[in-house]
Amino acid sequence: MRLSRRLAILSGLSAVVAGPATASSQGDPLPSWNPGPVKQSIIDFVAKVTRPGPDFVPPPERIAVFDNDGTLWVEQPLYTQVAFALDRAGEMAAKNPALREKPAFRAAADKDLAALAKLDEKALIELSLATETGLTPEAYRALAATWLARTHHPKLATPYQRLVYQPQLELLAYLRAHGFRTYIVSGGDVEFMRAFAENTYGVPPEQVIGSSQKAAYALTEGRAEVTFRPELGSLDDGPGKPVNIALHIGRRPVIAVGNSDGDLAMLQYVAGRAGPSLAVLVHHDDDTREYAYDRASHIGRLDKALDEARERKWTIVSMKSDWRTVFPRP
Amino acid sequence: MRLSRRLAILSGLSAVVAGPATASSQGDPLPSWNPGPVKQSIIDFVAKVTRPGPDFVPPPERIAVFDNDGTLWVEQPLYTQVAFALDRAGEMAAKNPALREKPAFRAAADKDLAALAKLDEKALIELSLATETGLTPEAYRALAATWLARTHHPKLATPYQRLVYQPQLELLAYLRAHGFRTYIVSGGDVEFMRAFAENTYGVPPEQVIGSSQKAAYALTEGRAEVTFRPELGSLDDGPGKPVNIALHIGRRPVIAVGNSDGDLAMLQYVAGRAGPSLAVLVHHDDDTREYAYDRASHIGRLDKALDEARERKWTIVSMKSDWRTVFPRP
Repeated sequence: MRLSRRLAILSGLSAVVAGPATASSQGDPLPSWNPGPVKQSIIDFVAKVTRPGPDFVPPPERIAVFDNDGTLWVEQPLYTQVAFALDRAGEMAAKNPALREKPAFRAAADKDLAALAKLDEKALIELSLATETGLTPEAYRALAATWLARTHHPKLATPYQRLVYQPQLELLAYLRAHGFRTYIVSGGDVEFMRAFAENTYGVPPEQVIGSSQKAAYALTEGRAEVTFRPELGSLDDGPGKPVNIALHIGRRPVIAVGNSDGDLAMLQYVAGRAGPSLAVLVHHDDDTREYAYDRASHIGRLDKALDEARERKWTIVSMKSDWRTVFPRP
Repeated sequence: MRLSRRLAILSGLSAVVAGPATASSQGDPLPSWNPGPVKQSIIDFVAKVTRPGPDFVPPPERIAVFDNDGTLWVEQPLYTQVAFALDRAGEMAAKNPALREKPAFRAAADKDLAALAKLDEKALIELSLATETGLTPEAYRALAATWLARTHHPKLATPYQRLVYQPQLELLAYLRAHGFRTYIVSGGDVEFMRAFAENTYGVPPEQVIGSSQKAAYALTEGRAEVTFRPELGSLDDGPGKPVNIALHIGRRPVIAVGNSDGDLAMLQYVAGRAGPSLAVLVHHDDDTREYAYDRASHIGRLDKALDEARERKWTIVSMKSDWRTVFPRP
């Protein structure tokens, strides 16, 4: 009898016999997670809230929110979206030399890392807004998708789109199989994420919440279109995350997964839910397979959230110890 | 054989025999809609996009957006939300007499209709914002739900919450039964609508898009809460509707239903979808059972949208002719 067939039978049996769910009795829905207290805490929580009992959560309330950069895919050495914005700004400056008068565009066009490092936040935000301005969401997503498919990560030498975490793909699917709707709530631009979230994570556009640009509607020569304006709409980071969850979802989620101080408010908000909740923090401590960083990192700094997670006994995932594999097989 | 059993068998048969769907062959999913071209156009459209063929729309793209005031429930003689805001402002002024120094609060507290009529839009918006400021979404919704359950409409002498249109409840259910996700996209306050949309319309909080106040997150004495600030976030009316659809849903819907010029941009946006789309406009022409108003109305003005709907052959619903019943039976 093939192993897969035996597992299927065991899995069928486990549905009719009483007893706590364990990884093995279910045919292991999270094979890329190593056995241990972290994996078990996730499985126990999902069992607790989906079975009849005092902690049962009705399906409409089963909402799980995930940060993206550093939680679902690699965020070092530069947020992927920033790498895209710099490439696109360089292309824009090549087509329109007048843009080279702006130091940010000139630095991007020349791939002048020293000049880029000297730019202040205002110049970087202005550059990022400019790369989206005047485009429809569809046009911007098409540009991002094309770039993502062809561009490789500088250290890991793999297309960015494949630098998603296999254990998290399994966790997303596992939660959906238990009636959860999985949302992304990330500081990244909402349209940049929508360019790949449905194909890559199985998260549809309406379940992607992110930072956003203001937009305008116009009917021009019979074409009804929404296009982006050069103004920040919402910054979906830190306290902006619970605010946007309240606005877009309108319910306090049951599960939150993040990896940095930018996720702390979201984790607190979910942990403060009346009823059961699960707050999960991914700790990047794997310099061999990915990166190791926390308190001193400029990107994805994890400092206050690490202390608070330890104090409140949230689930802290060690990438090194808890993840058997990090990336999907090519 | 009981009628319901016969209908079930007929309905089963209709699924296997070829031919266009008609109301009768399906056991009439829209019994409160009178037979005629309007009802048939809706049924034909849904059949066309949900059956294999050139106009098939995959389930993830099946999104229908509905305006609320005047489309799903009564909006005359005053938006229900404004009636609530005035009552709540009056209660606030009774508890805090200092508020009486503001003309809008004084007029609300004294139910001084002449004074209220003289207030400018800025004063009314300020009053509306004040009634929500400092509250969490949950607390505000609880106040709204209590008020809705106990307050009667001035002319129709029925609790506001029951002044929803029975034909539209059937349409919402019919679309959901065909794999559509039904969204509300309304100028009304998002939290006011969330107070009743799930129970009344079967539309969950995450599928309610409306005007919104800005909010702030804070962890205070261990409690993680989002509370509203006295500032408008988004005005979800006119061109604000397609902009918010793009931001919140991230796909162009397939069906849009509205009733006023405030819905015109949304109807255009949906009608401009690549692929099949259905734009529906409810015309209030029934002064006996509800109200008759269009071009000259201050509330729910229907002027440009009526012309454009006729020109573009959108589906125009006559409340008088197309709706067999208007309200649910008590």
